[in-house]
Amino acid sequence: MEKLLVETPGSTYPVFIGEGIRNNCAELLQPLLSKKSKALIITDSHVNTLYGEDLETNLNSMLPTTLFTIPEGEQSKSIEAYENGLTACIEANLDRKSVIIALGGGVVGDIAGFIAATYMRGISFVQVPTTLLAQDSSVGGKTGINHRLGKNLIGAFHQPEAVVYDTLTLATLSDKEWRSGFAEMIKHAYIKDPEFLSWLKDNVTCMEDMKKNGLLQFLKRSIAIKADIVKEDEKEAGIRAYLNFGHTLGHALEKVSGYGHITHGEGVAAGMIFAMRLSNHLELAHWDIDIEKRWLENLGYPVHAASMQSPEALISAMKTDKKTTAGKLTFVLAEKPGFPFLQTVDESDVLFLLKAEKKERDFL
Amino acid sequence: MEKLLVETPGSTYPVFIGEGIRNNCAELLQPLLSKKSKALIITDSHVNTLYGEDLETNLNSMLPTTLFTIPEGEQSKSIEAYENGLTACIEANLDRKSVIIALGGGVVGDIAGFIAATYMRGISFVQVPTTLLAQDSSVGGKTGINHRLGKNLIGAFHQPEAVVYDTLTLATLSDKEWRSGFAEMIKHAYIKDPEFLSWLKDNVTCMEDMKKNGLLQFLKRSIAIKADIVKEDEKEAGIRAYLNFGHTLGHALEKVSGYGHITHGEGVAAGMIFAMRLSNHLELAHWDIDIEKRWLENLGYPVHAASMQSPEALISAMKTDKKTTAGKLTFVLAEKPGFPFLQTVDESDVLFLLKAEKKERDFL
Repeated sequence: MEKLLVETPGSTYPVFIGEGIRNNCAELLQPLLSKKSKALIITDSHVNTLYGEDLETNLNSMLPTTLFTIPEGEQSKSIEAYENGLTACIEANLDRKSVIIALGGGVVGDIAGFIAATYMRGISFVQVPTTLLAQDSSVGGKTGINHRLGKNLIGAFHQPEAVVYDTLTLATLSDKEWRSGFAEMIKHAYIKDPEFLSWLKDNVTCMEDMKKNGLLQFLKRSIAIKADIVKEDEKEAGIRAYLNFGHTLGHALEKVSGYGHITHGEGVAAGMIFAMRLSNHLELAHWDIDIEKRWLENLGYPVHAASMQSPEALISAMKTDKKTTAGKLTFVLAEKPGFPFLQTVDESDVLFLLKAEKKERDFL
Repeated sequence: MEKLLVETPGSTYPVFIGEGIRNNCAELLQPLLSKKSKALIITDSHVNTLYGEDLETNLNSMLPTTLFTIPEGEQSKSIEAYENGLTACIEANLDRKSVIIALGGGVVGDIAGFIAATYMRGISFVQVPTTLLAQDSSVGGKTGINHRLGKNLIGAFHQPEAVVYDTLTLATLSDKEWRSGFAEMIKHAYIKDPEFLSWLKDNVTCMEDMKKNGLLQFLKRSIAIKADIVKEDEKEAGIRAYLNFGHTLGHALEKVSGYGHITHGEGVAAGMIFAMRLSNHLELAHWDIDIEKRWLENLGYPVHAASMQSPEALISAMKTDKKTTAGKLTFVLAEKPGFPFLQTVDESDVLFLLKAEKKERDFL
């Protein structure tokens, strides 16, 4: 088992990474749980059938624990689901000394974290991520839900008090889920670690490679990159925004194609390629787009996803992006690997490139 | 005009108090507003007719400003109203550099503050309280809404960046609203300032006295007491809980009698008398209950409110109080003026006293 510490201005918390460690939660979290009155596990219908009962039994050995299940899928990041979760907290008689345990993927972590952030003005929570994507989002304290007019528009910064990441849970992920989570890791390499990016390009060239090549080492490196950034800028006043590389178009793609049709990581991968093109177009970089695109395409990412959608609809969706200020579209661009920067971009430039993508596709 | 500074671990902000200053908001807030992209005023239907247009015009001289109105009343602290407020933020294109202005009473301040706390994971907000009660709650950063199963169970700590308190707005308050707000001020005297309490008992002996006797001085003292407490304990890990003197029963009375039938301050006044009785009953104090009760009764407070309700229903409501941990009822008790303390109390003691109140009333 590995243990990393994440430091933020307000708190320091451990991230445990190891095989099968979800069954040792009570023991690993003993210093925290021994001070708590009770625990509520929040999980989704799918993860519950895999790990719910085991975790509940394990934690019950330490403190009174109950479990609440939300339906699987992005739809559960709605205001209605949020209200249902709060009702579950009240019905479980959670008090200010209770703890919420988020067991599941990114959706579960986001909504359970937001419930913990706002129930009685904030109680403790612990992340037990079961997907690659959730492993990424479980560090850093971003929590939130969707508004019907935009993704993640409602939320809070609320750091977990611990993260328990059992790598055995990855065994049950679909290829789509692998790909979705892996995109965030690739992103970390692009924005912060050129050496690591080279290694990835050499060693991970197809889906199967993701699942075998030195994964634990990779996880640790990815978390460490994120922890470094969060440490410097917890509330995203500055460099934390770089973690949104690929996300401006990525979120818009998710929204316009209808949540669930394209995964978060798929959107981010297409968004990263687009950000590189935009960097070139504005004469701020010299990416070899074909090389980058081919690598991501070989890994199964839908790098042409934007060409399937209306450019106008994508731009309209981007305008509800949280980075947008005073109506200007803002992108994380990059000069080269390891050198990201924030840039407000004229709508006309974005529109031009989106239309170009569409034309290229029609041509193919 | 007077200016106080409220210090918290994360921020320091000004509280402006003066006659007619709401019409100088743009000027007073210039250092803050000049850095913002746009403003959204959130107010209620009643306050809007009084001050909405003036404030919108005033602020528009500084930055693009729009206004969103919620229905008047506690019902607007619902999850539905919260969602509507978020929709208004999105439709007004608020971004991370925007500011929400809460114009109104406690309900408006609580919900607008919670919207500001959670829209895009937190944006700036300014309080422009128009009632005595809101003047109290506008300092300290507690924001929140109600769940159908309990009051203020959902919320966040989110400090305003300024408070503008125009004492002229008090002119339009009903007696019920005066009484409601004044209870919090009396509470400050009970928990922290015995000398001030004596002055109040000598000088404020009927409703009309509230409205005339050195009000501005009183407001400042009351805010200063609260600011001192918030400075020491922003997140209510310790002494801030003393501000809940009278609130355990008070909240239960509001809930059991149906929100709106008894005002917040009326509930708190009855709750303070109950807390004194409980302090005596547990042999932790020697309050002369009759004297305290008579004073508050002369001011028009329903000090017997608990006797009208089922003791069991009140206890059940108290169990959803945020101070409750591990199912134990927790009260702020007081040995004497200026000496409050937190105490977990057996349900049987509370039940005994509630039943005694009922019997006394039947006897009268």
